[in-house]
Amino acid sequence: MFDMGAKPKSRRKAVARRSKKAGLPPGTLVYTGEQQVEAVRITIIDYDEQHVQEKQVASTEECFPFRETPTVTWINVDGLHDVSVIEKLGKAFDLHPLLLEDVLSTAQRPKFEDYEKHLFIVLRMLHFGDDLPAIETEQVSLIVGPNFVLSFQERVGDVFDFVRDRIRNGKGRVRRFGADYLAYSLLDAIVDSYFAVLEKVGEKIEDLEEELVRDPNQTTPRRIHSLKREMINLRRSIWPLRELVNGLHRSESTLITKSTSIYLRDVYDHTIHIIDTIESFRDMISGMLDIYLSSVSNRMNAVMKVLTIIATLFIPLTFIAGVYGMNFEHMPELRWRYGYAAVWAVMIVVASIMLVYFRRKRWL
Amino acid sequence: MFDMGAKPKSRRKAVARRSKKAGLPPGTLVYTGEQQVEAVRITIIDYDEQHVQEKQVASTEECFPFRETPTVTWINVDGLHDVSVIEKLGKAFDLHPLLLEDVLSTAQRPKFEDYEKHLFIVLRMLHFGDDLPAIETEQVSLIVGPNFVLSFQERVGDVFDFVRDRIRNGKGRVRRFGADYLAYSLLDAIVDSYFAVLEKVGEKIEDLEEELVRDPNQTTPRRIHSLKREMINLRRSIWPLRELVNGLHRSESTLITKSTSIYLRDVYDHTIHIIDTIESFRDMISGMLDIYLSSVSNRMNAVMKVLTIIATLFIPLTFIAGVYGMNFEHMPELRWRYGYAAVWAVMIVVASIMLVYFRRKRWL
Amino acid sequence: MFDMGAKPKSRRKAVARRSKKAGLPPGTLVYTGEQQVEAVRITIIDYDEQHVQEKQVASTEECFPFRETPTVTWINVDGLHDVSVIEKLGKAFDLHPLLLEDVLSTAQRPKFEDYEKHLFIVLRMLHFGDDLPAIETEQVSLIVGPNFVLSFQERVGDVFDFVRDRIRNGKGRVRRFGADYLAYSLLDAIVDSYFAVLEKVGEKIEDLEEELVRDPNQTTPRRIHSLKREMINLRRSIWPLRELVNGLHRSESTLITKSTSIYLRDVYDHTIHIIDTIESFRDMISGMLDIYLSSVSNRMNAVMKVLTIIATLFIPLTFIAGVYGMNFEHMPELRWRYGYAAVWAVMIVVASIMLVYFRRKRWL
Amino acid sequence: MFDMGAKPKSRRKAVARRSKKAGLPPGTLVYTGEQQVEAVRITIIDYDEQHVQEKQVASTEECFPFRETPTVTWINVDGLHDVSVIEKLGKAFDLHPLLLEDVLSTAQRPKFEDYEKHLFIVLRMLHFGDDLPAIETEQVSLIVGPNFVLSFQERVGDVFDFVRDRIRNGKGRVRRFGADYLAYSLLDAIVDSYFAVLEKVGEKIEDLEEELVRDPNQTTPRRIHSLKREMINLRRSIWPLRELVNGLHRSESTLITKSTSIYLRDVYDHTIHIIDTIESFRDMISGMLDIYLSSVSNRMNAVMKVLTIIATLFIPLTFIAGVYGMNFEHMPELRWRYGYAAVWAVMIVVASIMLVYFRRKRWL
Amino acid sequence: MFDMGAKPKSRRKAVARRSKKAGLPPGTLVYTGEQQVEAVRITIIDYDEQHVQEKQVASTEECFPFRETPTVTWINVDGLHDVSVIEKLGKAFDLHPLLLEDVLSTAQRPKFEDYEKHLFIVLRMLHFGDDLPAIETEQVSLIVGPNFVLSFQERVGDVFDFVRDRIRNGKGRVRRFGADYLAYSLLDAIVDSYFAVLEKVGEKIEDLEEELVRDPNQTTPRRIHSLKREMINLRRSIWPLRELVNGLHRSESTLITKSTSIYLRDVYDHTIHIIDTIESFRDMISGMLDIYLSSVSNRMNAVMKVLTIIATLFIPLTFIAGVYGMNFEHMPELRWRYGYAAVWAVMIVVASIMLVYFRRKRWL
Repeated sequence: MFDMGAKPKSRRKAVARRSKKAGLPPGTLVYTGEQQVEAVRITIIDYDEQHVQEKQVASTEECFPFRETPTVTWINVDGLHDVSVIEKLGKAFDLHPLLLEDVLSTAQRPKFEDYEKHLFIVLRMLHFGDDLPAIETEQVSLIVGPNFVLSFQERVGDVFDFVRDRIRNGKGRVRRFGADYLAYSLLDAIVDSYFAVLEKVGEKIEDLEEELVRDPNQTTPRRIHSLKREMINLRRSIWPLRELVNGLHRSESTLITKSTSIYLRDVYDHTIHIIDTIESFRDMISGMLDIYLSSVSNRMNAVMKVLTIIATLFIPLTFIAGVYGMNFEHMPELRWRYGYAAVWAVMIVVASIMLVYFRRKRWL
Repeated sequence: MFDMGAKPKSRRKAVARRSKKAGLPPGTLVYTGEQQVEAVRITIIDYDEQHVQEKQVASTEECFPFRETPTVTWINVDGLHDVSVIEKLGKAFDLHPLLLEDVLSTAQRPKFEDYEKHLFIVLRMLHFGDDLPAIETEQVSLIVGPNFVLSFQERVGDVFDFVRDRIRNGKGRVRRFGADYLAYSLLDAIVDSYFAVLEKVGEKIEDLEEELVRDPNQTTPRRIHSLKREMINLRRSIWPLRELVNGLHRSESTLITKSTSIYLRDVYDHTIHIIDTIESFRDMISGMLDIYLSSVSNRMNAVMKVLTIIATLFIPLTFIAGVYGMNFEHMPELRWRYGYAAVWAVMIVVASIMLVYFRRKRWL
Repeated sequence: MFDMGAKPKSRRKAVARRSKKAGLPPGTLVYTGEQQVEAVRITIIDYDEQHVQEKQVASTEECFPFRETPTVTWINVDGLHDVSVIEKLGKAFDLHPLLLEDVLSTAQRPKFEDYEKHLFIVLRMLHFGDDLPAIETEQVSLIVGPNFVLSFQERVGDVFDFVRDRIRNGKGRVRRFGADYLAYSLLDAIVDSYFAVLEKVGEKIEDLEEELVRDPNQTTPRRIHSLKREMINLRRSIWPLRELVNGLHRSESTLITKSTSIYLRDVYDHTIHIIDTIESFRDMISGMLDIYLSSVSNRMNAVMKVLTIIATLFIPLTFIAGVYGMNFEHMPELRWRYGYAAVWAVMIVVASIMLVYFRRKRWL
Repeated sequence: MFDMGAKPKSRRKAVARRSKKAGLPPGTLVYTGEQQVEAVRITIIDYDEQHVQEKQVASTEECFPFRETPTVTWINVDGLHDVSVIEKLGKAFDLHPLLLEDVLSTAQRPKFEDYEKHLFIVLRMLHFGDDLPAIETEQVSLIVGPNFVLSFQERVGDVFDFVRDRIRNGKGRVRRFGADYLAYSLLDAIVDSYFAVLEKVGEKIEDLEEELVRDPNQTTPRRIHSLKREMINLRRSIWPLRELVNGLHRSESTLITKSTSIYLRDVYDHTIHIIDTIESFRDMISGMLDIYLSSVSNRMNAVMKVLTIIATLFIPLTFIAGVYGMNFEHMPELRWRYGYAAVWAVMIVVASIMLVYFRRKRWL
Repeated sequence: MFDMGAKPKSRRKAVARRSKKAGLPPGTLVYTGEQQVEAVRITIIDYDEQHVQEKQVASTEECFPFRETPTVTWINVDGLHDVSVIEKLGKAFDLHPLLLEDVLSTAQRPKFEDYEKHLFIVLRMLHFGDDLPAIETEQVSLIVGPNFVLSFQERVGDVFDFVRDRIRNGKGRVRRFGADYLAYSLLDAIVDSYFAVLEKVGEKIEDLEEELVRDPNQTTPRRIHSLKREMINLRRSIWPLRELVNGLHRSESTLITKSTSIYLRDVYDHTIHIIDTIESFRDMISGMLDIYLSSVSNRMNAVMKVLTIIATLFIPLTFIAGVYGMNFEHMPELRWRYGYAAVWAVMIVVASIMLVYFRRKRWL
């Protein structure tokens, strides 16, 4: 969960998640995310080239029969707060305790691990929309076995609907290929969703650039700073992806077929593209505060010029008026017939000289 | 498409292109660039050492006969908005769906991919002239087979005319060598055209440096910022080229003969040269805003000095005048014969002391 | 020992520790930390799957019998100032002189060294709490043999209590596995404790960000600087950890079993996570001073505006009043019936024009 | 050609050189440097351990007899504008067209290329002296064959006189060793000449540092900027040298004997030393503008203090004088016997309080 | 020789040393350091496990008998200005001319070179004390043969006394081990002495930090800059050490025994520690100027506030006084009984409003 202008509670929480586990033996299953009340929702999609079966199950045990079938089975778990569900699935599918621990620690750095009997992928799903003040992130874990994919999400709602549709309608290659292709499809869906997020962020950057040029104000530096912080967080979520996808692509695991591997190269290209974009965004933001400061300096300069012109123009004139306001008995000028007019003339000359000087200095 | 001072619509679009594809199965052919109305233009140049044949074809099918001939065939497609054309060519030349998808996604990062039966190169062509406010970029895809080269461009108009002339006139090595040399020639033409763009950018930088020294004004920081952003974009288009050309040069594909490989090393050198130049430009631009800020500071300093000199000179004098403007009944000075003259004397002395002080401080 | 606002004595000391050893032959045992008066405390925990024995011993010699037993023996030494204790243990367990020297030089850079017969790990334990003004660090050395672990700490008090509890209660894997798993557990406990420290540091950063936005004052830059310095020190303590854990994980030593190695990969992930967090913190802090400077500039701007408004408004009016304060005999206006009212009218008009101008300039 | 304060024409030209070749087939020989009128000058030095022969030839053909002799032949060409000369030499010595093209493109990045039958080295010779406003660079190409070295320079005048003298006088190893040692000697002479240039640049930096401390003025930032730009260019000329010399040193070409290889390691060390120096210079220059800005800030501060002291001292006093300049009929103070003296007393007290305040603030 | 506030003559000299050798054939022996008048001092320590012999010799020839003895011989040469001494030793011990050249070029970058028959190490010895205004450096060359070590220093006075004592007293391992251990001991002594220098530098940094917080003044930026420059130079002397020691440690030379190799790993650790410290120092210094600038800004702000308060308070009051100083015949207020008191009341009200406003703005 990133904050954009909002209070930066989340980062504190991310580290806190870890620190509240301190002291427990490794492999202990503790959910470190926010506690939630709704029930965990488990959905199963089982398919091969001929048929598709889709159902939402009430108990973990209903998943077990699918374990041994030759068809591809995708078990998706929304909600991680019920540790027993994860535990039972872990036992049924023979998952390593450290893997389960990672599924539940919802502040994982994206990574790929090869557990020989299955592959483990953990990464972040980003949500960002007009209704959201800040980017929200959610941890997604994928476990890829010979003929099954388990996916774990923190909350209901994801970017996998397109994949589900394709499975249901038998569109694309997904029905013909195995579990590895399904995993690739899910990974691809997540990576593709990053482009939408980056598009929104790009808009924010452009709005800020516009504001910088059109109407910089006192809150601008704060906004630049929070955008910068957001980029720091975004980058931290996405950089490790490069290594993840590359590891998967170069993996010698027998769980990944050669035909899927070529698709992973494609995902890798997208990841590089996303990282490039983030770096460009960072570069763009990095110079913004300097532009702001130069605009503040310019305004200060303008203010100073007005002050200087007015003061420089009238202070000498006021002095002249002050001189003839003195009460000496013997001030011959005061008695001259055209003394008053002469003083005005002097004052106008002085002022004119000043104005010419200012014009030469380009202050007017 | 880069913007130089213009509105940064294009970047948003670049990401947008991607995001509108989200959810489609991989390999789905969707053109992500700007929709265009004109028809797709296909031109064929077929040649060997003895003869040249050049024609513009109306339908994709006319290309197919050239597939099997032993002569070198260059099929150039201007315009990507008619997906069916790409699809038919793809089938005819047995191209991988992911390759076709990349041809149509016009925000690709430059890359080289070896599909065994053919090589795939995607990079950007830059246009920048006196009539253009900003650098415009266009995606060019090259597919190199054993005896054919397919090139795809977004728009009519390219930098390949020199290559065409050489083929027509039988100048240079191009007619004697194979499809790989043709591909090299096209690549070389694109890379060479970058030098012209960099030359223009170099002129912009120098103009800005001149302005910085001669006449910095309030729009200068904005201009520096937009130049900087342009360099960020340019760099992003060109950096991956290094890897591309190197990959091609080191490729073990049988499609590239050894004699062509030595020419690719030359293109690689040019690429390094271009990247060096871009980095130098970035370095030059990076210090500009500081120079601007120091000039703003200097001007502010000058303004402050004028204000200080005038105020410091006249405020004490005005005070003296004020004193003798008081209406006390018992002010002996007012009645002195030379009181008025004495006051003038005092004021002149005070002013002189001030002026000496300012001169010592080097404010005058 | 890091200082956070406190006087930076410690760093000087860290280097001093080294420099006071200069000239002694390598392998000479000199304790380079702060001298302490309390006695060295040695505690032994000896266990296998069936039994646990725990005792605090008075003399070093009591440790020796455990050397040869097949059970896992953990000898923990609190306090390094009694060199003879270290020396005797060194002889008894056949430790290399350079290793012992490193145990006693309490400003070691974290590192892992393979001495074939045993593994040597040295790293830093961090303490940071509400009662501490700054992060305090302490050197911890671990020596891992075939069936023993020696741990050396500078002071009583550590983060190993969870591990002790698990051994006592037979919880987790620790009782079933060997000395390498114990070493892993200790390493894991230290690395986990870093998360708590980072959490506190994260809070400090957020407090400072709050202050920066709400109420920046003259001490803010100093605080930013000291936080920055703290991050420099923290980073220096933790960066080498990456190499350490990686070295251990990839080590081909027979002292580390394959089942423990997978747990070390987990520690490695945590280390990367911590380093990522530190880098993010650094990035966040790096921009803070610029935000502060922009806020100072803004305030200066505001001050200047008030001055300019007041001065610009009243200086011309005062001039007008000064003109009619002159004592010329022939000043027709002074005799007019409505001269006084007219002057007021002029002054109000002038002031109004000024105010309109200020409003246009958005200074009001 | 670098500019130091002078107009940056040269860089533009460097890129321009490339761009004017755009469209020509690769290997086309076009001289891209400045056109010159004088004739190309070719000098031959032919030697072995016993004899030396030195002559300046009128036509290219006179070089050919030396091609086959077993003695070492050094053919030096000053001036590249007569393409036919280069072309004939190229044919006679069987040089690759791309190599010849590189000799003539005088904006090459320094590089080393192994053409099997001969080695190709291209790098830049720097000239910088008290009589030159800026560093001038010239491209030097060396072609090393089994018993000949061809060297091409843009202009007459080089740093090879020491080498010539050594050959003439039979001093050093040069006469005993082969063409590879001659090539090394030339390379070494060029690299050694860089030290002299760096020495001059170092003096410029020190002069600027002096100025910064002693008498910073408005042109200082501009000078810093142009020095910085010069370093960017210098670095660009010299960085690739590292790779060049390393490539040569590690080359497996039979043209380089083992005994020469050890000397190349020495040149490599010098190159690293030069690069180190350039990096240090860059580091030194990078902080200069900040020092300048802080000095500007300090001066501004000093100016502000003077203004504030004068204004703060006299504005209240002027107010007091103004009060008693009012013309109210009922102002009892005006009639007091010691009213005038009392006002003076009040004013002196007020001024004294101000002065004490300023002294406390350390403004005086 | 580094300068800390002193004039930067030395750097210029360092490059100059090189440039004065330009044109001489490689391997020519020229001393490039400062010329000195005292005689070169040669001392020999010859030892094995049983005996030690130590003597100062008058002529180079006295060293030769020790060449062939099986005992370890350490020949130390203080002073390099007598080239013939170096030349004779070079011949006697069969040293490569390039090696001798490097010994005499006293601006060498630290490096390690394997000449098969002997190893060559060149590095810098640093001197820094309370009596020295700046760090002084001196080049030390070590040549390690099968049973001898030659060490060359520029001046009398070194950090090797501890090593000499250990040899004399037979303490430590040095007497039992061979020439490689002696070389290690010398290397270790030099690296250890760096810690003392870093400690002093650390003190300087802390003093500057104190000053920055307590009493920043106009010379502070200059001091920061010179400290920064010193770090640049220090870094340049020490960075290459890493490679040097690593090269030595990983060297496959038979001159280094395995037991010494483990000690070299220890030196490597120290080198990394030193480099870490230098990097931390650089990080600390890098932010200092910003802190200084923020403090200057703050002071400027304070000055501005005082000016603004005084001016804003009195300018309107002076205006009011000015109005009633006008000499119009018809000014009814002037005749009112309580006109004068009313004006005072108005002025007090105006001033009070101002003061409340200032207090709200927190300027008071």
